[in-house]
Amino acid sequence: MSEVNREWMEKTFEQVKNWGRWGDEDQAGALNFITPAKRAAAAALATEGAAVSCSLDFPVTPAPDNPHPAQHHMLVAGDSCTMSELGGLEASMDFIGIGFHGLAPTHIDALCHVFVKETMYNDRPASEVKSIGALGNDIMCARDGIVSRGVLLDIPRQRGVDWLEPSVQIRPEDLEAAESAQGVAVSEGDILLVSTGRDARRAKHGPWAPMDGMAGLGARCVPWLHERRIAVLGCDGISDAIPSTDIEEWPVPIHQCCLVAMGVHLLDNLDLSGLSAACAERGRWEFLFNVAPLRIQGGTGSPINPIALF
Amino acid sequence: MSEVNREWMEKTFEQVKNWGRWGDEDQAGALNFITPAKRAAAAALATEGAAVSCSLDFPVTPAPDNPHPAQHHMLVAGDSCTMSELGGLEASMDFIGIGFHGLAPTHIDALCHVFVKETMYNDRPASEVKSIGALGNDIMCARDGIVSRGVLLDIPRQRGVDWLEPSVQIRPEDLEAAESAQGVAVSEGDILLVSTGRDARRAKHGPWAPMDGMAGLGARCVPWLHERRIAVLGCDGISDAIPSTDIEEWPVPIHQCCLVAMGVHLLDNLDLSGLSAACAERGRWEFLFNVAPLRIQGGTGSPINPIALF
Amino acid sequence: MSEVNREWMEKTFEQVKNWGRWGDEDQAGALNFITPAKRAAAAALATEGAAVSCSLDFPVTPAPDNPHPAQHHMLVAGDSCTMSELGGLEASMDFIGIGFHGLAPTHIDALCHVFVKETMYNDRPASEVKSIGALGNDIMCARDGIVSRGVLLDIPRQRGVDWLEPSVQIRPEDLEAAESAQGVAVSEGDILLVSTGRDARRAKHGPWAPMDGMAGLGARCVPWLHERRIAVLGCDGISDAIPSTDIEEWPVPIHQCCLVAMGVHLLDNLDLSGLSAACAERGRWEFLFNVAPLRIQGGTGSPINPIALF
Amino acid sequence: MSEVNREWMEKTFEQVKNWGRWGDEDQAGALNFITPAKRAAAAALATEGAAVSCSLDFPVTPAPDNPHPAQHHMLVAGDSCTMSELGGLEASMDFIGIGFHGLAPTHIDALCHVFVKETMYNDRPASEVKSIGALGNDIMCARDGIVSRGVLLDIPRQRGVDWLEPSVQIRPEDLEAAESAQGVAVSEGDILLVSTGRDARRAKHGPWAPMDGMAGLGARCVPWLHERRIAVLGCDGISDAIPSTDIEEWPVPIHQCCLVAMGVHLLDNLDLSGLSAACAERGRWEFLFNVAPLRIQGGTGSPINPIALF
Repeated sequence: MSEVNREWMEKTFEQVKNWGRWGDEDQAGALNFITPAKRAAAAALATEGAAVSCSLDFPVTPAPDNPHPAQHHMLVAGDSCTMSELGGLEASMDFIGIGFHGLAPTHIDALCHVFVKETMYNDRPASEVKSIGALGNDIMCARDGIVSRGVLLDIPRQRGVDWLEPSVQIRPEDLEAAESAQGVAVSEGDILLVSTGRDARRAKHGPWAPMDGMAGLGARCVPWLHERRIAVLGCDGISDAIPSTDIEEWPVPIHQCCLVAMGVHLLDNLDLSGLSAACAERGRWEFLFNVAPLRIQGGTGSPINPIALF
Repeated sequence: MSEVNREWMEKTFEQVKNWGRWGDEDQAGALNFITPAKRAAAAALATEGAAVSCSLDFPVTPAPDNPHPAQHHMLVAGDSCTMSELGGLEASMDFIGIGFHGLAPTHIDALCHVFVKETMYNDRPASEVKSIGALGNDIMCARDGIVSRGVLLDIPRQRGVDWLEPSVQIRPEDLEAAESAQGVAVSEGDILLVSTGRDARRAKHGPWAPMDGMAGLGARCVPWLHERRIAVLGCDGISDAIPSTDIEEWPVPIHQCCLVAMGVHLLDNLDLSGLSAACAERGRWEFLFNVAPLRIQGGTGSPINPIALF
Repeated sequence: MSEVNREWMEKTFEQVKNWGRWGDEDQAGALNFITPAKRAAAAALATEGAAVSCSLDFPVTPAPDNPHPAQHHMLVAGDSCTMSELGGLEASMDFIGIGFHGLAPTHIDALCHVFVKETMYNDRPASEVKSIGALGNDIMCARDGIVSRGVLLDIPRQRGVDWLEPSVQIRPEDLEAAESAQGVAVSEGDILLVSTGRDARRAKHGPWAPMDGMAGLGARCVPWLHERRIAVLGCDGISDAIPSTDIEEWPVPIHQCCLVAMGVHLLDNLDLSGLSAACAERGRWEFLFNVAPLRIQGGTGSPINPIALF
Repeated sequence: MSEVNREWMEKTFEQVKNWGRWGDEDQAGALNFITPAKRAAAAALATEGAAVSCSLDFPVTPAPDNPHPAQHHMLVAGDSCTMSELGGLEASMDFIGIGFHGLAPTHIDALCHVFVKETMYNDRPASEVKSIGALGNDIMCARDGIVSRGVLLDIPRQRGVDWLEPSVQIRPEDLEAAESAQGVAVSEGDILLVSTGRDARRAKHGPWAPMDGMAGLGARCVPWLHERRIAVLGCDGISDAIPSTDIEEWPVPIHQCCLVAMGVHLLDNLDLSGLSAACAERGRWEFLFNVAPLRIQGGTGSPINPIALF
């Protein structure tokens, strides 16, 4: 399975560390790569005004990849709409609840979501993430949204298949081949989205237990991601291949190196099928990308509905 | 209090109806005013790349305006991060739950949120909003996000005050005075944001019970909103003044006429303080505005973090 | 599979109806069989002072029979215990959430939980069960607890097996054979508990999807249950066998006839392994039984921890 | 306010410690005082078969003493009962959620709920109470229910008033005066219930913010409770008076000494109005008492509906 060993992982983790790069107090990590100029350039890509969601529907249905379904509860439905507290107003209301990490909800991981040796991004101890909420590296660094150029690399398309089989680990060579084939180059401050075709496979075969295998980026992509200075990484899976390495303490090296070492936020369980079609149709794989996490103080991430604009 | 009577309300409700305007099956209402060209023109406003959130923080703290606080529960904190199910991964996780309607959470109202005479937008019966979710007019019409030009009218600024007192009802004349003072004109497909200074008043005096009074648009604004063909209306309050009319069946005419008659989605409990400052600083009251509701099938709305981009 | 046909089911449903038996306004159903004298006689059985729980643990773990796991969230753990709102108090706190119907949680079904032809016990329409809560036949009829004689019939024991295979339907003859073998007779006002050995099978083979089959009482038991004038029926499964009949509108005749026609509350997903051992050890199959539902106004039932006292 | 000082509190805390009394591994504390013989004797009190709940209704309504209301959400109401997943079954279902500590829900405190100097009952460190659940002293020690003799001491009755004013601290002399007046003596293994008349005051004046004051037992009762070897203490308030002492680290000495030093579980926010009436009517202040916590592994307590049986 794994092309890497413990020594390589440990060395790589150290090499890609951005700790201190934006100051000792920094909690935003690679979001610092997104400058106003970068945002403005990204906005200039939205020449058509076509918007595409990259989110799956709110995942309320139990499934092999959704063992803890989200809650959508109607509090007042039409049957009771005339029984309002506010006399005369007829209204319906609902409640949502979600433990948004996991393999079904479309969400963003904050930098406090993962630790290596009980330490998180920028050398903060895991103990800062309290049972009452995270005191550092929470999602509030993205309170004003994450807006930048999005770039989609569609690996199945590059390989001429509908999807990558669950055992596949994407290599840096694959990313570069996709860049070349698509005529796009990942650069500083980009939100890089990588498609594995999970949506297509699920549409065909139904959801499966992720622990049985998920295509994703192999550990060897870590240095490449670092070199390109991406701001955020997103995937229709969880970016990491499952399984990834056979090293006990490095089960998901992309999560571990991106969130902890590099300070790169991750977007998990995107729906990239619509985006890929939109890109292919235009022969254009870059767009304005907008991620707007809920402002959850002390939160380890947020459910999101990222929107691409062409 | 009220400048309008029942007859006027009923006549106005009929006059501003957009039922059938976009077909008998339409569930998107005035979002139809947002064309690709409108979106592209809005994107062209984002020349600086400055992003501003218009959301309050996730409202977990009980308060007079927050009697049903949202939930933010850590599922795994740093103290347990080494006890992962996925061997070797150290992670923290959390859960959020929210009944997002009400007077504290920043949220969007779907067209199935309000009824008049047990009927909702485009002549659909309230009974379509089931206890298991809405079968029509749910938030899914905004699944690809709501992206358009945003225009902020800052009424306190126009009046030279920090905030409007809770008893104040904004009139069409006030909206036009603000347009004039700010050098901006509300036009078809816009997301109109109206500031009452609620944020400033709350910062000064703390939260208060909304039933004690909230500034907002009076009923006489309804025809004006209709004429301008806005796509969405947002406010730092709930757009309606409280109290608004003294007519039993028309307690919140903006909600009733916008959501039911016109098919105009509402954004409630925005934080417009940062946006207003950003606009004033630039002397520019228009911007690219992005609202990305969660894709809740059957949902009556969604918590949101709307992002303005200059 | 089924020993009964539609005609028999409809006739039987009519024959076992207790509608009007305790008045047209009654909402307690067969709980009326439990008199103070019955309770006092039951208490007289508690001569030893040995207490046995009949509840499974709070079901937070996803499983084939638990697709919507309950929530147990720590709100404040030891790591934050000194950060109290009440100065000086060091405390931990938690939250529980549960949709208690289903195949995993130990719970009681209120009489508003099931309908036949959109009608519930004592001829109340399903429309009384609103999205804001049930207006009739809710669990509040059991607000003072359900205390009576409990009688356990252990069918696997009577058959000399560890458990009944999932396809097995218990017949009235089985119930009587168990009575005879155990030296106990079910009588008016009893809480009848029937063991299928589900606990033992699950302990051996792990949980399985209930729709693949669950042992339980077949439809032919309905008249027998009615004749015996039981107050409550409980089971380690859901009382009904799955599948039960092949008649489309009578999928779970025990639920339909007990809750709707007879007004007999049901206890689902009990753990009867400890109780059975306690009974066998004593050669005594009757005991004081206490069920204390939470006082949920408008509730369709409650999670419970029923306690047997010898 | 306070009749005690820091030195007295610290000395008393040491004197009433039951740490090690039932072994170093014990997690049940004073529940060990409840023997089978005690339970059998208690059951013998249930000669009439009259049952009385001591629980308030499930607290879903915001109030000054209920800032985090419990959730009762219908998942399927009558309007959707024919849309079942199980063809032919018409059913309604609901969900409950509750953070049960606090001043409104009737609940039991487990021994892991409170710490003194980051240590809990039987010398276990607070760090054992993890964000994923308590690893020691959780509510599972009461998994088989808490069944014993209940004794009610009604202090307002003894004083000839309807309720104690919020500032009142009950003294040991008051407890003994009530014992004497009522003709009952608290003894080893009892579940002691103390009424302050909170229910009556709330019925008259509505709920109030507990931090404004609540009647309860003063710190001087601690040695008395220890001497009597009670198993459990319950109250219509939270047993402690608020405020109680003016010593910073001893804000609620009953909670701190009972839960941490003595291992006495607490029942908070009982409704004792019905029980008091039932006792007075009979001139009998002892009864069989049954508390059946949900079996929440790692839980710091449980919502309960305690049932008294005469």
